[in-house]
Amino acid sequence: MSIVERVEWIAVDWGTSNLRIWVMDGAHALLAERSSDQGMAGLEPTQFEAVLLGVIGEFLALGRVTPVICCGMVGAKQGWIEADYIAVPGKPPSGACVTRVPSDDPRIDVRIVPGMKQVTQPDVMRGEETQVAGFLHGQPKFDGVLVMPGTHSKWAHISAAEIVSFQTFMTGEMYALLVKKSVLKHSVAVTGWDDAAFEASLSEAISRPESVAAKLFGLRAASLVGDHSEEAARARLSGLLIGLELAATRSYWLGQNLTIVAAPEVGEVYAKALSLQGLQVQVYDAQPMTRLGLIAAYNTMKWAT
Amino acid sequence: MSIVERVEWIAVDWGTSNLRIWVMDGAHALLAERSSDQGMAGLEPTQFEAVLLGVIGEFLALGRVTPVICCGMVGAKQGWIEADYIAVPGKPPSGACVTRVPSDDPRIDVRIVPGMKQVTQPDVMRGEETQVAGFLHGQPKFDGVLVMPGTHSKWAHISAAEIVSFQTFMTGEMYALLVKKSVLKHSVAVTGWDDAAFEASLSEAISRPESVAAKLFGLRAASLVGDHSEEAARARLSGLLIGLELAATRSYWLGQNLTIVAAPEVGEVYAKALSLQGLQVQVYDAQPMTRLGLIAAYNTMKWAT
Repeated sequence: MSIVERVEWIAVDWGTSNLRIWVMDGAHALLAERSSDQGMAGLEPTQFEAVLLGVIGEFLALGRVTPVICCGMVGAKQGWIEADYIAVPGKPPSGACVTRVPSDDPRIDVRIVPGMKQVTQPDVMRGEETQVAGFLHGQPKFDGVLVMPGTHSKWAHISAAEIVSFQTFMTGEMYALLVKKSVLKHSVAVTGWDDAAFEASLSEAISRPESVAAKLFGLRAASLVGDHSEEAARARLSGLLIGLELAATRSYWLGQNLTIVAAPEVGEVYAKALSLQGLQVQVYDAQPMTRLGLIAAYNTMKWAT
Repeated sequence: MSIVERVEWIAVDWGTSNLRIWVMDGAHALLAERSSDQGMAGLEPTQFEAVLLGVIGEFLALGRVTPVICCGMVGAKQGWIEADYIAVPGKPPSGACVTRVPSDDPRIDVRIVPGMKQVTQPDVMRGEETQVAGFLHGQPKFDGVLVMPGTHSKWAHISAAEIVSFQTFMTGEMYALLVKKSVLKHSVAVTGWDDAAFEASLSEAISRPESVAAKLFGLRAASLVGDHSEEAARARLSGLLIGLELAATRSYWLGQNLTIVAAPEVGEVYAKALSLQGLQVQVYDAQPMTRLGLIAAYNTMKWAT
């Protein structure tokens, strides 16, 4: 059988900046995967369907309806169609409560899984709840804190297979804005690293979080007045911003059972930062967790509704 | 006599985002002023002369060399030509140490006043030193701290007519990036205000600076999950960022003699923030201070060199 004949459904992780799809057979074996930089942030609601068809079209067949199940910012207010939120404390979404996306193409049936929201201490997530679902699929009895760093870092208390509470930090977005759009772009490299600089800045930000405000422009000034390298400045900026996040999340990591789910490179930086606080934390790659979470949603979905 | 015949020299404040010129007669009376949004950030080194001539050309005459004296980011590494720095502790620049800008136009003689730098705790300023010079012209015996909020807030210890030390905060630039370029742009208004929201956020950031990292995304979430207004979010964002700056500058304002020099609208917000800490602080408009500082520089400059 050709791949197209074996396709049963398609899993989609559609975030702010990227789109990634996994093509599955009836046993959830991966037949193919594709990715694109056509994230939700660059699209108008009317453009999503064409972008999706451009990426998955080769796997569709006339006379067959292929289920497509999506998570992430595609379900945000500025996305394709606004999907629901499940309130915490609560289980990360299964196939229930999915939002059906109206489509004119008879080859697809598109659903978006709900995000999660927190009403007291207002917070929201779209995408990470599916990572949590995938992680819990492998470790259903996990009790502790999942750290999901990225554009918007999420710290989630997990207990009895529920997300009890969570908190979001704009660390990754702030880092990107400062490196690409602020005056620091002249002084901070986009690659390269310096362990000692990272460690010093991190520890300074954790113990004196207010100093971050002053140290940021210092990165620029040090390159003008002194001879600091742009690579050290990059590590220093990471240390300051992650340190500020760790200062604010102390109750999430002090004496807690902690696991990181993230893109491996980002996850390793956070693991290093936490190890400097005396915590040995395992890092799970976020992508397989998302895929597992989407499989769990697919398995419990009622496709007739 | 026509205005052009009465022109003796031209003062120029050329910052990151704006250009402002004042046309002066022999007694430093203002004959005309012009402004433009052709700030240093949008220009290549080769473009500055044409932009300047476009703005001041109507005031020049053939057969006469008009001195033009500039301050601000025009003298930065990415500006027209790199001007010197004077190290602190030191007097804000007089006419000494100006950098002459090579020009092919015989009608102008352009000079840029130096900025100031701090080597221990690296820091730099370009433009604010001229505000300090202007302020000290009117209050030569001032002993205390000048606060100059803006894109990059500067806090400067002044004593015996010298800048003793200073520190820079990226508060204004961070605010602009978050409002215009981050996910918060969907939840924060560009105008409007809410005093109570400002005061609550400010006091929270001063007492728990690390909480700022968590509260930022909260502005977005509150607008999705709750019914918070975008105007309140704007005041809250200001409160968080200014509060973080005040938490870091405690030694600059606690028990100090303080004066603000700023664009009036920004200055009033900082004055309000400081009044909530029990400090009554006077606000001076930055523009006249800059002009006075440039006049002081002109008066002491040796034009023959």
